[in-house]
Amino acid sequence: MAIIVQKFGGSSVANTEKIRRAAKQVIERMQAGYQVCVVASARGRQIEELLRDARELNPNPPKREMDQLLSTGEQQTVSLLAMALEAMGQKAISFTGTQIHMLTDGVYSNAQIKSVDSEFIRHELNEGRVVIVAGYQGVDEHGNITSLGRGGSDTSAVALAAALKAEECEIFADVDGVYTTDPQVFPKAALLDEISYDEMIEMASLGTGAMHIRSVAIGKRYNVRIRIRNSESNNPGTIITHEVPQMEGILVSGATIQRDMAKIGIAGIPNVPGTAARIFARLAEAKVVVDDIIQTEISHEKANLSFMVRNSDVQTAQKVANELKAELPCDSVFVRDDIALISAIGVGMRSQYGVAEKMFGALAKAKVNIDSITTSEIRISCAVGRPDVERALEAVCLAFELDRPARQRTKKR
Amino acid sequence: MAIIVQKFGGSSVANTEKIRRAAKQVIERMQAGYQVCVVASARGRQIEELLRDARELNPNPPKREMDQLLSTGEQQTVSLLAMALEAMGQKAISFTGTQIHMLTDGVYSNAQIKSVDSEFIRHELNEGRVVIVAGYQGVDEHGNITSLGRGGSDTSAVALAAALKAEECEIFADVDGVYTTDPQVFPKAALLDEISYDEMIEMASLGTGAMHIRSVAIGKRYNVRIRIRNSESNNPGTIITHEVPQMEGILVSGATIQRDMAKIGIAGIPNVPGTAARIFARLAEAKVVVDDIIQTEISHEKANLSFMVRNSDVQTAQKVANELKAELPCDSVFVRDDIALISAIGVGMRSQYGVAEKMFGALAKAKVNIDSITTSEIRISCAVGRPDVERALEAVCLAFELDRPARQRTKKR
Repeated sequence: MAIIVQKFGGSSVANTEKIRRAAKQVIERMQAGYQVCVVASARGRQIEELLRDARELNPNPPKREMDQLLSTGEQQTVSLLAMALEAMGQKAISFTGTQIHMLTDGVYSNAQIKSVDSEFIRHELNEGRVVIVAGYQGVDEHGNITSLGRGGSDTSAVALAAALKAEECEIFADVDGVYTTDPQVFPKAALLDEISYDEMIEMASLGTGAMHIRSVAIGKRYNVRIRIRNSESNNPGTIITHEVPQMEGILVSGATIQRDMAKIGIAGIPNVPGTAARIFARLAEAKVVVDDIIQTEISHEKANLSFMVRNSDVQTAQKVANELKAELPCDSVFVRDDIALISAIGVGMRSQYGVAEKMFGALAKAKVNIDSITTSEIRISCAVGRPDVERALEAVCLAFELDRPARQRTKKR
Repeated sequence: MAIIVQKFGGSSVANTEKIRRAAKQVIERMQAGYQVCVVASARGRQIEELLRDARELNPNPPKREMDQLLSTGEQQTVSLLAMALEAMGQKAISFTGTQIHMLTDGVYSNAQIKSVDSEFIRHELNEGRVVIVAGYQGVDEHGNITSLGRGGSDTSAVALAAALKAEECEIFADVDGVYTTDPQVFPKAALLDEISYDEMIEMASLGTGAMHIRSVAIGKRYNVRIRIRNSESNNPGTIITHEVPQMEGILVSGATIQRDMAKIGIAGIPNVPGTAARIFARLAEAKVVVDDIIQTEISHEKANLSFMVRNSDVQTAQKVANELKAELPCDSVFVRDDIALISAIGVGMRSQYGVAEKMFGALAKAKVNIDSITTSEIRISCAVGRPDVERALEAVCLAFELDRPARQRTKKR
C-alpha cells in the first residue's frame, strides 16, 4: 500500500481547532487508500513560553538541556493529534524521535539525521494505524535528545518519506504553495505547479519562507516528491521534484528579494595569497554571515574586496573591517547599508542564454541602478538601492512573465 | 560518597522563582559533601492546560497517549532545573524516565517500576554532576512512556533512593513534615520527629496528604530512610523509618478524619457462601471503592451487610445495591450519607492494651455517638455523624496527647 508522509508545522496545529482540522486532512488521505505517516511541529505559543522560562533561569542555557526542554513541544502535539484521530474513529499512535530511533550525530540544537527505524513504523502502518512522529527531534546513540535545528520538522518529514519510500511528502503551510515571487511585494505573482529541487534550494537560501533549504536538499538526494500545500484549502499546491525536460524551456522560475542587506568594501588590500582567507576567517570568528563576495585587482600590489552582510550584522562586520585596516593594511573601509538584493532563479539558465541581458535591460528600463552583480549556475543576483527594490522586482517579474503560470508563458526554443 | 535523593513536587517547582529555590536546596546538600540525585514533578499549571486540551479533543483519550502527553510536564521541569543549577555554577544533567531506563510493567497511567539503571546515574554523579530525573514516568520494554499513577514522583524518588542505596530520600512538601493530625482541624497538632512505615501507610491510606501509600510501602520494603520536609524552611521535618523499640512506648502516633463518607447497608441478604463476593464484584465493576465492610449474621438464613464508600460514589453504590435487592434477594437497602470516620493509629497498639477503651471513652465524654467500629492491627476507626467529627478528633487527640511531641508525652510501662 502506498505511503504518504504529511507534515504539519506549528501554525497548522496551534490550537485544538487546528489540530482537529489537521486530523481531518489525515483521514482524507486514509480514505483515499493511503497509509499515512504524520510529522508534527510544536505549537508556537508553547515554545515561546518555554524559551521565556529558560532565559529567565539561565541566559546561556546548556544546549543539551535546551533540546531536552523544547522537544516536549512536539511530543505534546503528536499525542494530542493521536487523541483527535482516535476521537474521530481512526486508530493512531504517536512517537517521539527517541521512540522511532531517529538517530542523529549528537550535535545539540543542530543535529544531522543518520538513520531512522522505518520497519518499526511500517509495522504500525500495517496495523491500520496512523503513525504520528514528533518532528524536529532525534536521539543520539547515548539516548540524549537532539534537535535538528532550523527547518527541522521539514527535515524529519522528508527523511521519513525517503526511509518509507513514500509516494509523496506533503508539507502543509499557511500558503497555497510556492509562488514565482513574494505575493506581498508583487501581488500578481503566480503559483507554481512544480519547481525543481535546485531552484527551490536557491529560493530557500534567499529566504522565501515556504521550506528550509536542508530538507529540500535531502529530498533531492533521496528523490522524494515534495508537495507544499495549504492546510486550510484543497489547492493541489506546488510539487518540488527532479528537473524534467520541459522545465528547461522556462528561463526563470522565480524571483526573490532580500531587503536588509549591507555592503562592506575594503579598498586597497594587499594583492597577495591569503589576504581574503584572513579577512573571512576573522568575520567567521565574529559569527558574521557573508554573501556575494567580489574581489577585483586594481594593481599588481593592491585589490579591492567587497561582500554583503545582513543589516543586523553590519556593525560587527564594520568593527572587524576597521581592525583589519591597521593590520593588513588597507587604504579604506566603506559601508553601504541601504542595499537590497534582487535575484532571478531558473534551471533554464543552464542551457539558455540571454537571461542576464534581459534582466539588466528590465532594470535599466525601470531606472534601477545596479551596484554589483553575482551569479551562480541557476541564479543571477543584483545589488540595488533599497528604495528601488520593489520597482526592480516588478520589472524583473514582468520581463520573465512571472505573473502567469509557467505553461501560459511565451515558449522559448 | 554518600548519596541523597531529593524530590520536589509540583508546588515546589511551580515557577522560575521556586525552581531557583529548589536549585539552592540542591546546592546546599552538595556543599555538605553529598552526591545529589533529584526527582522533580511537573509544574501544576502545565498539566492543567494539557488536560484541558486533551479533553477538548477527546473526552476519553487513549491512556498511552495521555501518558505520552503528560510526561512532557516533568521533562520540562527537569531541564529547567538543570539550567538553573548550571547558571549557579553547579554541573547538572537532566534525564527522562526513558533515558535512565526506569523500566515499568507497561500499564499505562498506573505502571509499576520493575528496575532502574542505577549504574548510569552513579556514573554521572561521580562526574560531579547533579542528576535530575523526571518523576512520575517510566518506560516499558517497547519504549512506550508509562506513568506511575498517583503519588508517582514520590515513588520514583524512593525507588531511586533504594537503587542508589542513598543515605536518605528527602521529600520536599509545602508542610513542615508529618503532624499527629491535620493542623487545619486541630491547630494544636504536633509535628512528629519520626514515624514508622506502617503508621505512615495507615495515615496515607486515610488521606493525610503528605505522601502516597505506595511510595512508603516501597520505602519499607527496601529500607529507605525518608524525610518529609518543607521546601521553604530549614525545619528538619519528619523521618519515616523502621519501627524502633521506643515507638512501642507510644500508644497512638496520629489521628485522621475522613469527612465525606457514606454507609450503605443491605439488610437480610442470604446467609450462604458467595453472597458477599457477588455484591463486591458488582461494586468493583462499577468502580466503587469500598472500605470498612461489616457483616453480621441475624439468623441461620439471613445476614446484614454494611460498608463505607466515599460520598462521590454513593449514587453509583446505591444503584448497584438496589439492582442486587431483586437479584439476591434481600430485605432492604439503606444509605446513611452523613458519615465521617475518625481513626487513631499507632504501632504501640500491637503490644499494648486499652487503646480502644480509651478512644471510646474520649468519644463518649465528648458526647459523640459511634455508628460502627472497624480495626486493624495498628488502627481503630469509628464511624460518627459528620457534624460530630471535629469534636471527635479533638477529644481523641487530647486523650492520646497528640498536642505534644512524642517525647513529652506521659510514658506508658
